[in-house]
Amino acid sequence: MQLNKAELEALERKYRLNLINSISGVKPANLIGTKSAAGQENLAIFSSVVHLGSNPAELGFVLRPQSEPPRDTYANILSSGYYTINHISASFIQKAHYTSAKLERGESEFERMKLESEYLSDFFAPFVKASAVKLGMKHQESILLPNGCTFVMGSVELLHAAEASINDLGQLDLADYQGVGIGGLNTYYGLQKLDSFPYVREDEIPDFQA
Amino acid sequence: MQLNKAELEALERKYRLNLINSISGVKPANLIGTKSAAGQENLAIFSSVVHLGSNPAELGFVLRPQSEPPRDTYANILSSGYYTINHISASFIQKAHYTSAKLERGESEFERMKLESEYLSDFFAPFVKASAVKLGMKHQESILLPNGCTFVMGSVELLHAAEASINDLGQLDLADYQGVGIGGLNTYYGLQKLDSFPYVREDEIPDFQA
Repeated sequence: MQLNKAELEALERKYRLNLINSISGVKPANLIGTKSAAGQENLAIFSSVVHLGSNPAELGFVLRPQSEPPRDTYANILSSGYYTINHISASFIQKAHYTSAKLERGESEFERMKLESEYLSDFFAPFVKASAVKLGMKHQESILLPNGCTFVMGSVELLHAAEASINDLGQLDLADYQGVGIGGLNTYYGLQKLDSFPYVREDEIPDFQA
Repeated sequence: MQLNKAELEALERKYRLNLINSISGVKPANLIGTKSAAGQENLAIFSSVVHLGSNPAELGFVLRPQSEPPRDTYANILSSGYYTINHISASFIQKAHYTSAKLERGESEFERMKLESEYLSDFFAPFVKASAVKLGMKHQESILLPNGCTFVMGSVELLHAAEASINDLGQLDLADYQGVGIGGLNTYYGLQKLDSFPYVREDEIPDFQA
């Protein structure tokens, strides 16, 4: 299948939505936890978390164009300055997926989806107890993108991870805790380690065959 | 393991680099192809491609802080306005990984890594022939982030994908062409489809158990 820009625009809306959402490849599966000033917890699935830097440790994520007022996750990030990023494992992909539901005002996804919240140290925002990797994030800056999306940047203030999943080099084994990836809007993939290669030096490139 | 910000900063440099590069979860594995005004082809692996919108179809990616002059990929994007994004399959993860090598001036990663280039329609930038999904991208805008990284945004001008990997709903099966994900700096994961869930409506949420 080969489509140019005009042909992409002419596709049926849902078909295009599914197709274009899957063409960036596999996406990380994370739950973002927040809390309002009034103490209301919120949890939402995001597949757009991206690495920005390791010293200091910084991550970004993309928010779809926000309504006015913004939806709970972003409203809570703006009011409190804090949020959590929690990895999704295969055992709770369905619960995680359904956090995208629009609930009644005042209802928490933690409760409705039976995903227990947890507080670590004195961090303001709630973590997902079942997650093997939990990050306490401080909001740094938001950039409004030309298409109306918002790129939200934050620094890692707290890192909690299962010791057994990290090797002596600091490498996290995503398969060890049944970490998952997302394809498109609603397909979940398990991960199976294939191989690991060294940091590349010019004089150590193998002789490749066509 | 639980670390606060000061403890993260005190980690040994390589350990922190490995750890923090892996805490965003699984990352998409893509090769970005470009060509200079003089006709020199370039190919580089990126794990930071992110979905921005489906109508029009737009993707972003994060570039590490650039030297002056910028490295080949970004220099070519700036001079030509075009680039390609090509999915990596399990059969060529090693070749793809080694595109991160710093080669002699004038040497192409397509040739050195024996990854054949391909031109589709009259698109300026080269595609990776072996990739099951190939995207012709037009540079739209770059945003310099506070930490020195650059967020590069582009629109999808051409989409080429294996027909057999796309179902009637427009969903791309990432496992069908042995698509892969990246963990940290150098670990590659195969994908295995676990499940797919419908678009969420409030009145269709299952009764979850704790």
